Amino acid sequence: MSVTDAERTALRHAFALATRGPRGLNPQVGAVILSPTGEILAEGWHHGAGTPHAEIDALSKLDPDAARGATAVVTLEPCNHTGRTGPCAVALIEAGVARVVYSAEDPGAVSSGGAERLRAAGIDVDGGVLREEGEQLIESWLTVQRLGRPHVTVKWAQSLDGRAAASDGTSQWITGPDARADVHRRRSLADAIVVGTGTVLADDPALTARREDGDLFEDQPRPVVVGTRAVPQEARVRSHPRPFMQDEGDDLRDLLDRLRELGAHRVFLEGGPTLAASFLRQGLVDEVLVYIAPTLIGGERVAVGDIGVATIAEQRRLDIVGVDRLGDDILVTLTPKES
Amino acid sequence: MSVTDAERTALRHAFALATRGPRGLNPQVGAVILSPTGEILAEGWHHGAGTPHAEIDALSKLDPDAARGATAVVTLEPCNHTGRTGPCAVALIEAGVARVVYSAEDPGAVSSGGAERLRAAGIDVDGGVLREEGEQLIESWLTVQRLGRPHVTVKWAQSLDGRAAASDGTSQWITGPDARADVHRRRSLADAIVVGTGTVLADDPALTARREDGDLFEDQPRPVVVGTRAVPQEARVRSHPRPFMQDEGDDLRDLLDRLRELGAHRVFLEGGPTLAASFLRQGLVDEVLVYIAPTLIGGERVAVGDIGVATIAEQRRLDIVGVDRLGDDILVTLTPKES
Ligand SMILES: NC(=O)c1ccc[n+]([C@@H]2O[C@H](COP(=O)([O-])OP(=O)(O)OC[C@H]3O[C@@H](n4cnc5c(N)ncnc54)[C@H](OP(=O)(O)O)[C@@H]3O)[C@@H](O)[C@H]2O)c1
Ligand SMILES: NC(=O)c1ccc[n+]([C@@H]2O[C@H](COP(=O)([O-])OP(=O)(O)OC[C@H]3O[C@@H](n4cnc5c(N)ncnc54)[C@H](OP(=O)(O)O)[C@@H]3O)[C@@H](O)[C@H]2O)c1
Repeated sequence: MSVTDAERTALRHAFALATRGPRGLNPQVGAVILSPTGEILAEGWHHGAGTPHAEIDALSKLDPDAARGATAVVTLEPCNHTGRTGPCAVALIEAGVARVVYSAEDPGAVSSGGAERLRAAGIDVDGGVLREEGEQLIESWLTVQRLGRPHVTVKWAQSLDGRAAASDGTSQWITGPDARADVHRRRSLADAIVVGTGTVLADDPALTARREDGDLFEDQPRPVVVGTRAVPQEARVRSHPRPFMQDEGDDLRDLLDRLRELGAHRVFLEGGPTLAASFLRQGLVDEVLVYIAPTLIGGERVAVGDIGVATIAEQRRLDIVGVDRLGDDILVTLTPKES
Repeated sequence: MSVTDAERTALRHAFALATRGPRGLNPQVGAVILSPTGEILAEGWHHGAGTPHAEIDALSKLDPDAARGATAVVTLEPCNHTGRTGPCAVALIEAGVARVVYSAEDPGAVSSGGAERLRAAGIDVDGGVLREEGEQLIESWLTVQRLGRPHVTVKWAQSLDGRAAASDGTSQWITGPDARADVHRRRSLADAIVVGTGTVLADDPALTARREDGDLFEDQPRPVVVGTRAVPQEARVRSHPRPFMQDEGDDLRDLLDRLRELGAHRVFLEGGPTLAASFLRQGLVDEVLVYIAPTLIGGERVAVGDIGVATIAEQRRLDIVGVDRLGDDILVTLTPKES
């Protein structure tokens, strides 16, 4: 049968339910059980690793036979995999649902095949409904799956000649308001914002994502300070709406794993030069954003420190993804070349 | 009367004649005297400062009355100014020409007004013919008039992070073939190419303008090496098709004046970092070309050295004129901000 308006409405509701669950090791998934006449019987979402999947969460709210003949509407293809929970496809078959509507396909190597299993059991299945929204919901989770760690964007602002400050350390402002607004917008899309102690001690950044009028964006990244030096009691980062976290920085890969467990899919690394160079040198950067201001500064205060390139054959080549003008400035977006 | 085909043909010929004269303190100008039936009676061009203007040069090749009733075709409006030569307008009136056709207007504050003077003497005058070609012929001379010195373009190639070489000094290649071809094309449009001794000793550049197949462009800039250290006997710059010139570099402004006297309107400064920084610090740069390669190098070998900026308020702001992609690289063209 074709997808009904009630099912599409239920799917949109399931997208919203999904985001109630935590971001982290598992994808965010939402589910709604509809009666044959289109009423919502139950709703559910995935509450995080080790807890029931969204479909099971919804079914668990119903009496054993209440889902018989019903339609399960899910944001992700029901899994076909026995992990800490049994396969959702089997649970839906056993509950006696007559129809399953889902959005994104399950990309997992071991968990996919749920739709096929449902069809084999005689259930009417429609997949790929509102696919774009469904895929977007789990996009960053998919990236994390692929990388095995959070996606890391490193950003810095520099003069044309690659400097981040004048000789005396002053640096406000090199780039203009449009570039700075772009940075704040990107902060609001990240789950964690990372800086070194050097930057905290020099600039005392608030590390919040602010709109041009100064108001906070609704979504704020978790602030992370890397380094052994103490963060002063009066440091602005301590007033961040989310609690700040400090890490010694002796194992950056491990730090990323811990951030992932805390639900960070997208990490925004804002320097400074020393910490950014460490991430680059260790190959832990997936995207580079360079805001270039049309100005020359010269001197010693370079925006990127030593990245371990001794001879030209070792230079770190990147691919340019985009070149944009932001007010007077240029934003170059790059990704590391596959080596 | 309207401009005839014979006059246009004569004007084009005059453009070619003009370029026989030297570039330098005075504009290049060419002139042709046409009989009333359109035959060429005489041709002339300006041979350089202190010598007769093109019209006078052409008239001087005729018997005193031979130009009576003729048409003078000149690339630049005849001057109205008594300098080392008398006003050309007066000479044309006295020679009895019936008509004057010219291309570009004379922009000089003291020398303009020639067309008016000719008309007042009853001569038929048509100005602005093939104006674009006429203006282009003297464009760089006009720039030099405005600046009071040659136009200076400084160019460098750098990694995204502003480095010109890896720690061990290796630098080939940072930018790709398209960027390098662009540099060679621009060299061929310059009158002089300037580098410091540091660059000559490190890179032994040929300083020729070469096509992609390696052949030389027809026009080659005069090579100039700045610095006190000796240029080795076997240095490639000594095999340049034009004789190389060395200057101690203690007075860059004076060097530019001398280059101007030698006919250089457009100077292409190719570094290195130390010499480029001196030109920048002294405000002797009119255009900045930065070829940025999508690569990170880090380390100490910056593309631009100390330019005397102690604090951020002293940074040298520029205006971006263009951002172009050249193969994998980016070319940013800038001009210094008027201060
Ligand atoms: N242009 C820009 O976009 C931009 C951005 C940020 C900062 N800045 C400027 O950069 C300057 C600060 O530079 P910075 O280099 O001192 O700052 P930084 O990179 O923020 O801090 C470096 C410090 O991070 C700590 N750290 C911990 N683990 C590390 C690891 N694995 N690798 C590297 N560092 C690690 C170390 O401090 P401990 O000794 O505490 O362990 C190290 O000294 C300021 O002037 C600031 O204005 C510019
Ligand atoms: N990335 C690029 O586009 C690019 C372009 C060119 C060179 N490079 C690299 O730059 C390096 C050479 O750097 P460099 O800084 O030594 O080269 P440089 O700027 O070519 O030479 C500097 C020298 O020029 C002489 N000089 C004379 N008058 C001067 C003045 N008024 N101001 C400054 N210098 C004056 C001095 O030498 P004396 O002691 O002889 O008087 C000075 O040491 C090489 O590794 C080369 O590969 C890169």
